[in-house]
Amino acid sequence: MPRAKPSAPAAAEPAAPPADLREACVAAAREVIAEQGIENLSLRDVARKLGVSHQAPYKHYPSRDHLLAEVMRRCFEEFAAWLDARKHFDDPAQDLASLGHQYLHFAEQRPLEYRLMFSTPWPAAAHHPEVDRYAVHAFDVLRQVMQRMHGTGREQRERVELDALYIWSSMHGLAGVMNGDSLGKLGLGAKVRKQLVTHIMTRVGHGLAGPV
Amino acid sequence: MPRAKPSAPAAAEPAAPPADLREACVAAAREVIAEQGIENLSLRDVARKLGVSHQAPYKHYPSRDHLLAEVMRRCFEEFAAWLDARKHFDDPAQDLASLGHQYLHFAEQRPLEYRLMFSTPWPAAAHHPEVDRYAVHAFDVLRQVMQRMHGTGREQRERVELDALYIWSSMHGLAGVMNGDSLGKLGLGAKVRKQLVTHIMTRVGHGLAGPV
Repeated sequence: MPRAKPSAPAAAEPAAPPADLREACVAAAREVIAEQGIENLSLRDVARKLGVSHQAPYKHYPSRDHLLAEVMRRCFEEFAAWLDARKHFDDPAQDLASLGHQYLHFAEQRPLEYRLMFSTPWPAAAHHPEVDRYAVHAFDVLRQVMQRMHGTGREQRERVELDALYIWSSMHGLAGVMNGDSLGKLGLGAKVRKQLVTHIMTRVGHGLAGPV
Repeated sequence: MPRAKPSAPAAAEPAAPPADLREACVAAAREVIAEQGIENLSLRDVARKLGVSHQAPYKHYPSRDHLLAEVMRRCFEEFAAWLDARKHFDDPAQDLASLGHQYLHFAEQRPLEYRLMFSTPWPAAAHHPEVDRYAVHAFDVLRQVMQRMHGTGREQRERVELDALYIWSSMHGLAGVMNGDSLGKLGLGAKVRKQLVTHIMTRVGHGLAGPV
């Protein structure tokens, strides 16, 4: 689909304070994504939804990818805050389980944001230090729990990172299986489906407790 | 994007044997998906790529979703064959590890097909017994290895299924993390990245060996 090139705002554009328009674009982009899918987001649709001229969003975002990158940055920010808002425990193993459930809950409640962050190719504009910073922040929530478990010394660093990646990939896989369409095709019994999360969380815990 | 309604083929359409056109549509659809993304597949683009009339693909596929479903069915078929083609071992644990590596290898070599099967919402037409059958076939490769490990009796059935789901979700998560864009943002050392697969495969093995 050809996209309009950035140009000066049209004179007839309805007056809207720039700060609001910037925010409004993000909200409208999320609506467009929810309605039409990530790949179909365009600044034209965002402008139409807001009732502003086609050129107006370009005042704040040089391209649809820049707007998408801002949506992604906020997704990571909200995701990290969501993980931080889990029930905390002094015992790191208990805290890790709480973090795991909180992670799965996000993927279940906000599948679109989850897919945007972790299951779609990032647009070029998302490869930006500001997006990276919030992505790292989300990973740090997990890294810190692993540090409480293994220690913060130099010699524990690799183990902390490898186990954080192990836990992340385990939860990412479970979230993907539960959100995906294939699970429903396998003819699984109700009991298996009911036990699925607990079973896998238990197995992941055993995996972590084993020798490296 | 509005789509053309199915209609009678235009008289001026270039002659193409129906059997070939059916096949050619699948090949062209895969190319369109590779070039433009899954969401942008249209029968119009498929027709253009094949140099046939816009109506021609409708002779074989009532909608772009039906063509996409046929592409998905073949992906599952090829995926199951790929898993079957792994190096086989008598020892089920060794065979499971071989299956895991073969799974990851598919996701690495054919990220688009992988994403189509497991990380995008299925179109309505893909919820079809023929697609299901091939999806189940792929899962059965794993289920059979778990049966060799745990047994085929009635009382082992749930454990077999739950552990098959555990292994699948572990490999799906690892494939997703490795194929995704976030991994590169976390400032991981070269040593951690190099050890990642082995570390996680080891942890997954420990998880499976633990008590239920």
